[in-house]
This record gives sequence, structure tokens and C-alpha cells, in this order.
Amino acid sequence: METEPARMTAAEASSAIQARKMSCEELVRSCLARIASRDSVVKAWLRMDPDHVVRRARELDKTAWKGPLHGLPWGVKDVIDTKDYPTTQNSPIYDECQVGRDAAAVAVVRGSGSLILGKTDTVEFASFGRKAVSTNPYNPAHTPGGSSSGSGAAVGDFQVHLAFGTQTGGSHIRPASFNGIYGLKPTWNRVSREGARMSSLTLDTVGWYGRSVEDLILVAEAFRIHRDPTPVAVKGLRVGVCRSPVWREIEPAGELALNTAAKRLAEAGAIVEDLELPEPFGRLHAAHTAIASSEGGASFLPEYINANALLAPGLKEKVENVLQITTQQLLGAYALADSCRPVLDGMFGPSLDVILTPSSKGEAPVGLHTTGDAVFNKMWTLMHGPNVGIPVCFGPTGLPVGVTLVGPRMSEPRLLAIALACAPVIDAEAEERKRRLWPA
Amino acid sequence: METEPARMTAAEASSAIQARKMSCEELVRSCLARIASRDSVVKAWLRMDPDHVVRRARELDKTAWKGPLHGLPWGVKDVIDTKDYPTTQNSPIYDECQVGRDAAAVAVVRGSGSLILGKTDTVEFASFGRKAVSTNPYNPAHTPGGSSSGSGAAVGDFQVHLAFGTQTGGSHIRPASFNGIYGLKPTWNRVSREGARMSSLTLDTVGWYGRSVEDLILVAEAFRIHRDPTPVAVKGLRVGVCRSPVWREIEPAGELALNTAAKRLAEAGAIVEDLELPEPFGRLHAAHTAIASSEGGASFLPEYINANALLAPGLKEKVENVLQITTQQLLGAYALADSCRPVLDGMFGPSLDVILTPSSKGEAPVGLHTTGDAVFNKMWTLMHGPNVGIPVCFGPTGLPVGVTLVGPRMSEPRLLAIALACAPVIDAEAEERKRRLWPA
Repeated sequence: METEPARMTAAEASSAIQARKMSCEELVRSCLARIASRDSVVKAWLRMDPDHVVRRARELDKTAWKGPLHGLPWGVKDVIDTKDYPTTQNSPIYDECQVGRDAAAVAVVRGSGSLILGKTDTVEFASFGRKAVSTNPYNPAHTPGGSSSGSGAAVGDFQVHLAFGTQTGGSHIRPASFNGIYGLKPTWNRVSREGARMSSLTLDTVGWYGRSVEDLILVAEAFRIHRDPTPVAVKGLRVGVCRSPVWREIEPAGELALNTAAKRLAEAGAIVEDLELPEPFGRLHAAHTAIASSEGGASFLPEYINANALLAPGLKEKVENVLQITTQQLLGAYALADSCRPVLDGMFGPSLDVILTPSSKGEAPVGLHTTGDAVFNKMWTLMHGPNVGIPVCFGPTGLPVGVTLVGPRMSEPRLLAIALACAPVIDAEAEERKRRLWPA
Repeated sequence: METEPARMTAAEASSAIQARKMSCEELVRSCLARIASRDSVVKAWLRMDPDHVVRRARELDKTAWKGPLHGLPWGVKDVIDTKDYPTTQNSPIYDECQVGRDAAAVAVVRGSGSLILGKTDTVEFASFGRKAVSTNPYNPAHTPGGSSSGSGAAVGDFQVHLAFGTQTGGSHIRPASFNGIYGLKPTWNRVSREGARMSSLTLDTVGWYGRSVEDLILVAEAFRIHRDPTPVAVKGLRVGVCRSPVWREIEPAGELALNTAAKRLAEAGAIVEDLELPEPFGRLHAAHTAIASSEGGASFLPEYINANALLAPGLKEKVENVLQITTQQLLGAYALADSCRPVLDGMFGPSLDVILTPSSKGEAPVGLHTTGDAVFNKMWTLMHGPNVGIPVCFGPTGLPVGVTLVGPRMSEPRLLAIALACAPVIDAEAEERKRRLWPA
């Protein structure tokens, strides 16, 4: 097992705390030291109070063990409320806005013994507008992705073990790919999104990052998403490779990641076949745009009215319906998505256990003016089912690239069990990531 | 026009303020006087600070006119955040919980010049659990309905002109019926529900109360729901009377209200015909239960974990899934609702302008241990379209009873225009309500 606490997976740290081989304070001090050495480059955090955090860790060391999340430190994307830090949304409108209540997801992990380390940088309102200043831990000239920029970078850079992100387009799974980490976007509304900034009610989903599938499962259990006790064998597993209706957007690194993952699974005995989606799925991308834009208009009306000059132009445009989405288009988009969801769910069964699909076009692009493109994530967000992001390999630029496993709605226990079996096969570079970012 | 400010409709008060015939301070002082004289009986308010409110009114009197909502006072159901009062959810868990941020709907009306008078009593979390202590203004032995109990009672009792409520089952439209007031439950997600306590994401909807359709329209315009300029004639209007699949639950007063409204419309020249819904609509009531219960499980998990002993048994049962709703049942309920929504929308057209349906089984029941039954509202909530509650008559117990007008999703401008035309025909007792509660 890893001996430097901050370099451990959450699951490893959890075991060490439970066995009393490590204190919560030792764990968090290791994270704080890593942050101190790296923050000037990675800039993942908007707000973090080391003294407060150490005090909380000491309290947790004196408290009866609350379960596997006891003492594990979290980064929380700063569009999600925590009662001990302001929620700024990375917007000048909410500078220092103090909300005396944890978001539902934060309350669940805090109540399960977790330690909220601090708030991570985000694209303004997890939507359009001001970008995070965070950088990709593998190369500060590149974006860590977004909008969950700081959460993705902090977990990837071994600064914190777990973090919350949110996804409306591809804001959770894409940073997982870019930062070489694991991420779960659960089924829409399976985890309460209360206290996470609303952008599009039909799309917004709270998810979490970790450094292994086991990490994701530990958190899922706190949300009463039970561990599936049935073991999964990669041999004989039916994997559908879905290049998706937007395959023309793929880049060499994204293709490499998908093909590498598929090849590794096939070599391990999985039955890997191409999966074509029926025609209506080709229209889901446009439906996502109509819904995100139209619902965003309602979400940002308060700021449009109260703080117009401080609101990003891209958000004003939603309120002004610059895309001129009609009621008919919006209702048509709902109807299309509503009809595709059961079709997708129904594809899973004896001939299909899991879908394998790109997490991103390729590696993280250069520059902090962009967070990359959500084109390979939007359809899956709209379909509401669970997605697990798994790292695969390094691209030609030396940055990590991942893939996504998709399951039918509400299938988290089974999908996580499949991911647990597949991850050691797909992700061959976990040690290499440590070597590059933080050699022992 | 009414001369006692608190007895006016919101639209009348708005005109008087705009014409500078009345100050915001005069208006709010009239409300405060009414509250002082009636609060010991009606008990609509959980939190209200008269000094703060008068100061705000004076500020508004010194501010440039911000539009039709300028100076109009609001009650806000205490499951909705306001930055100037705590949000208690009527739960001991959130006693004094101060949230430094307005809910989206509050921010919109505050930014449009409204004055937040105070927080109104509610059923715990607008769900199950502790009831409001508020009473029906027409008879304190009866409930004002719920869960928007205080908001309904305060508007009905002439204590405040406008109020926010929320609806997951029938929590907004039912109190409109029981308190002799007007209410709009807009299309799901047309008005941001951010900052309103989540119970069921698919169902929860923020709405508002007023004392006339014009009141509802003034508020709608602040939410960028534009006034439909096309005048509506009752003569020739095609009204479908929908007794709904739960008609067996109707009581004499509910039947009287529906028949009276239908008769008055027919006498005014409307083409009133019975409307039967196709078979699948009969299963929507059960689908509502599956969704509300299952989604409630995710919503109340934070309190279940952090404050179990203080959480109402009915809410614990959702987390524990006592109804044993399976994933298949939940997804089946979504699929049914998703398929019925476009069918319902499609019924409107040349042969159907509006649906007329009960708002409640009958009059407000006796006792404060109950808030009445949402059986006539649940299906419409699940269908996501706009509902307007309109008072009709008094029942045998001397309490008001209303009816609901229903339109297709996103049709608020047209539905409100229809309601504006129909209300003077349907609601023949507006003066009688004043006479009974507050004779001039």
C-alpha cells in the first residue's frame, strides 16, 4: 500500500483510518502539504482554510468511526453550497455569499464522517462565462477541463482524494478524462442536486471524483446506492463500443483511448462489438442544446434582473433566448429525450452489459480560455443514466485520456461492479500517473 | 376602487402606487395593521419583522418606480429562501437556518421592486410531517389547506396581496380553493425552483397567489411570461369539463363548484362539453405516488443521516422506501407521464381551449391535523402544464371552493388570458368574500 497519505486512493486511506494505522489529521496534513507545494501552479482551490480543516480532522479523530468516508477529505465545486465556506459560483455577483446550509450531497458525505477541505474553482455558474484559473496537473499550459475544473485538477494532482463536480453537458466526465481520474455521474436525480446551482433542471447532475472505482463505490454507498455483491467477470462481458452520432468530432487521442480500452477488454476475454444507435439518437445533441438553453433562461433570470452588468454575456443570451428556441422546439426536445431513454435502457440485457464510449474528443486542449468540448458527453447526460469515467492511457501530448462506461438508468450498483472488474484491464497507467505527477 | 390598501387586489394597489395615489409605506402599514388584528386567529406567519418591512417600504418610496410589482408586499412560504429571514422549513432541524441568498423566484420579484413581508407557515418541508398552525380565515376550526397553508390564508385574509407557494401534489391549488383566492402553478421549470426546498424534482413547482387573474398576470410578467394581447371572448370558448379519473372522490361542495362554474360559463356563451381522458391517464395517480415517494427518498437522505430523530416519520419512510417502489415501477411511472404529456398538450386546439376541473374534493375539512386531499391535483402536477385556481362559490359549510383551469405546457400567456375572461363569469363572490372576512 501507498505510504504517503495524499497519494493513496480514497479506499486505501479509508482502510488505513479504519484500522487506526493513520489519523484523519495525518491524512489531511498530507493533503495540505501537497496543496502548499502545488497550488501556485495548479490553482485548484477558490477557498480553503487549513487551520479550520486541521481542527475538524482532530475532532474526527476523537469521534467514533462513522463508516468508510470517515476522515476522507473532499473538494467541493464552488457552485455547491457548504455551510463553512462561501459559495461564489466564480461569479462577482456572489463574492463572499455565505449560505448557512450544506447542499444535500455535501450534507450526506459530511454526515458520513467526511471532511470538507475547501471549495474548488469552476467555470462561472458551471455554465458559460468566466473560466476557472486552474491548470491541468500534467501541463499547466493546458486546461483541466470544465466546468468542474478545480475538482478534477485537485483529485488528479493528489491534493484531495474525493471531490464533487456537476454535469449539465460534459462538465464532470470530461475533466475526469483530462486529469486521469475516475468519475461517476449518477442517474439524474438519484442523488439530490439541492444546493447545487441550477442551470438546466433536466440536465444538471451532481457527481463525484475519486482515484479508483472502489473510491466511487465508497461514496455511492453513503448515498444508499448499494454495492452489487454479484462478482463480474471481464471474460464473457458483453461490451458495446458506441462511437456515437458525433464520431466525426473525435481526435486521434480520443480514438486511441477508445480503441485501447476496447482492445484491452477484448484481450481479457470480453465480447466487444460495435453498437449503433437508432436514428432518433442522432437528434439528441440538438435536443440537448434546446433544453440547456431554454431552461438556462429561467435559471439566470434572477441575475439578469438584479446584477445584469455582472452577468456573463453567454448567460444573458440564454435569458434573451438569442438562439430563438421556440416552445415547440423545447417540447419536441423533451419528447425526443423522453422517448429515447427507455429505448436506450432496453438495449441492455443478455446481449449488452455495458456501453463503452469516448469521454472527450481527445486530450485536454492547450490554453485556459477553453475547457474543451462536451460533444461526446451531452447525449449521455440527456439520457439520464449513470456514466463512469475511467482513465486509459496518455495521448501524444503526454496528457491522460479516459473513456466512459454507460449503463441504463438506476443501474449504478451493476455499472460500478462492471467498472470495478474492467478498470484494472482498461487503466494500465495508474502507477505511471503517480510517477509523472508525484514520484515517490 | 377599494380604498383600504390591504383590501385591494395587487393590481389595484399597483395602479395606486404607480399613480402616486398611495405610498409603499401606506400599503404595507395597512397590511401590518390587518395582520396585527388577525394574526392571533389566522396564524399565517412564521417570521415577520414589521420595523424592517416599514424601512424597506420607505426605501422603495424613495426609489424610481421599478414596474408593476413596485412596493407590492409578498408572503413567502417558509420552504423558499429569502436572504432577510431564516428558512425553517417548519422543521426543528432548520430552526433559525439563515441562508444568505434569495431563492430564484424571490430574487425575481424583489428585483422587480416587490417587498418581502415575511415567511408563511407550511407543512414541514412542504411534504409530510408537522402541519402549519395557520387556520382558515373563514373559520379557524378548519384548515387553510396545505402545504402552502400560511401563504393561502394570508392572501385570503387580506393580510398580504401576493404570496409564493409550492406544489408537489396539490399544495398550491388546493389552498387557493380553500381560501377563496387565485393561484397560478406555472409549467414545471418555467419558473426557476432554485432555493425552494426539494421534495420531488419531477413534481415540485413554485407558484403564486393573488386576489385576481390580473394579479397573477402582473407577477407572470416579472418572470418574462408575456401578457397575451389577443382578447379572449367567453362566448364561443371551448371548455372541456374534466371530472378526472378520480371523480369518485368528489364531495358535494366540489361538485357544486365545478357544476356552478360550468353553468356560468355556458350561460355566458361558452361551449362547455364533458372531456374524457384516454385510459392511460387513469394510471397517472399511481405514477405520481411512485415518483413522489421515490424521489423523496433522495431528497430527505441528508436529514435522515444528520438529524434522524428530528425528521418526521413520513419522510423517513420515503428514505427507507417503505412503499417498496422498485426501479421498474419508478421508470414505468416516468415513461407513463412522459407519454401522457404530449397527448394532453395535443388535445388543445380548435375543439378545446381550456380544461375545467376540480381544485379540491370540496370545502376545507375541519381540524388542523389535516390539510385536505390532493387527489384532484396530483395528475395535473405530473402533467407539468399550467393550472390557474379560480374561486367559484361558498359550500354548505360556508367556506369557499374553487376550480382549476388547465392549459397545455408553456401556454401561460394564453391560459391567463382565458382566465382573465372567465374569472368575472366564474367568480361571482369576490365582494361576498370581503363582506364575510373584512366588511368595509
